[in-house]
Amino acid sequence: MSGRLFVVGLGPGSAEQVTPQALAAVAEASEFYGYGPYLERLDLRPDQRRIASDNREELGRARAALESAAAGRDVCVVSGGDPGVFAMAAAICEAVEVGPDAWRQVDIRVVPGITAMLAVAARAGAPLGHDFCALSLSDNLKPWPVITARLKAAASCGFVIAIYNPISRSRPWQLGEALEILRAILTAETPVVFGRAVGRKDERFLVTSLAEADANMADMATCIIVGSLETRRIKRPGMPDLVYTPRFSKGLPA
Amino acid sequence: MSGRLFVVGLGPGSAEQVTPQALAAVAEASEFYGYGPYLERLDLRPDQRRIASDNREELGRARAALESAAAGRDVCVVSGGDPGVFAMAAAICEAVEVGPDAWRQVDIRVVPGITAMLAVAARAGAPLGHDFCALSLSDNLKPWPVITARLKAAASCGFVIAIYNPISRSRPWQLGEALEILRAILTAETPVVFGRAVGRKDERFLVTSLAEADANMADMATCIIVGSLETRRIKRPGMPDLVYTPRFSKGLPA
Repeated sequence: MSGRLFVVGLGPGSAEQVTPQALAAVAEASEFYGYGPYLERLDLRPDQRRIASDNREELGRARAALESAAAGRDVCVVSGGDPGVFAMAAAICEAVEVGPDAWRQVDIRVVPGITAMLAVAARAGAPLGHDFCALSLSDNLKPWPVITARLKAAASCGFVIAIYNPISRSRPWQLGEALEILRAILTAETPVVFGRAVGRKDERFLVTSLAEADANMADMATCIIVGSLETRRIKRPGMPDLVYTPRFSKGLPA
Repeated sequence: MSGRLFVVGLGPGSAEQVTPQALAAVAEASEFYGYGPYLERLDLRPDQRRIASDNREELGRARAALESAAAGRDVCVVSGGDPGVFAMAAAICEAVEVGPDAWRQVDIRVVPGITAMLAVAARAGAPLGHDFCALSLSDNLKPWPVITARLKAAASCGFVIAIYNPISRSRPWQLGEALEILRAILTAETPVVFGRAVGRKDERFLVTSLAEADANMADMATCIIVGSLETRRIKRPGMPDLVYTPRFSKGLPA
């Protein structure tokens, strides 16, 4: 008899943003698979076991978790943010598709979480208040020309763009080039928001313009929101600017 | 002295998906503004007051809440899902921008929530596992040609598309036309997910193909996820198909 496999999103980092549904799933599982820093956020009982792996080993981790669940254990795979957004839920599905038949009988329950762009947007005001897209900048996962084509298409037709995985040691130049591409389409004043670990002690949060935006403002845990031509900044006395995209749109950029 | 204005997301409907941060904000406010069905979800004390308004009166509601907070009250504006995604946070910012100076001094705190597409995606598997966009189909808020241009651009460059506000009594034909536009770009087998009130008793959830997708499968509270050319369905014995978009992409459609 197969066990259950919970794929749980822990949100951006603050315990205040973890849902009761995620906590209930954690309480029911006996084994926990994930990237070490996410596993460390869990408050586990002595009978519950952590199995940490590197953040580039998603498919191996998915296979190990499925194997254990297929053997009858209740297992939890944890992601930061939401498990369905550039995270473990897709890796689990990939493993199921090519894995043994027994894995198709595992009761897989994906538990959504607050994904980074929602937390960064909330901190800024409402930059995602109109149509938007979410794009991973990692060219480990797709050819760079696909990424640049999507950046151009999204900016040209007025989507606000949330950029995940903007930069890493092995991908140092891509974010700078992405910003150059966007500068050729959008105005210099277009608001850009950099948010990292929002709601945690090590939060970094910055509102700037596309002209001033620089790849050094981001690290691998930063989510960047690039406005559209309609995104606005409101000055407030003694408080940070509010950044928002109006619900109404007049039309496409000329 | 100005009060605080919390703009809170209650998630898709299940109490299990409301964050502790949202509950804390609700506990601190004395007045609650929102669409009636969202306000009814709140478990309030006798000293807390509900002020319901129609879901087409977002700007008037925003103004009333800002007026009350500027007068010194702690006020809560509630949205279903996430307040920053096609919801009240942008309406609040719009009202601040054109309102009296006093409104710029209100301490505005946006509290993120699980937005509909994340809950629908979790129920389906991982359809948002690769680049995606979120698009409101309401042409009350923008010209229809803007919507069709975005649908074409998004489908052509490989974004999965989450459609919000797909249909209503006053917008009966737009979803059918949107599906026709997508059928001209994507294959007949492209997975399409319809989800409504996911996690609630009145949940409706359906996985189909783009060829079979029909506007009658949606109502105004449905979120629709249309896959890309890379989105896949996995058959499972005795369980619904898993729908997912692989993390890896080989390239753009020819």
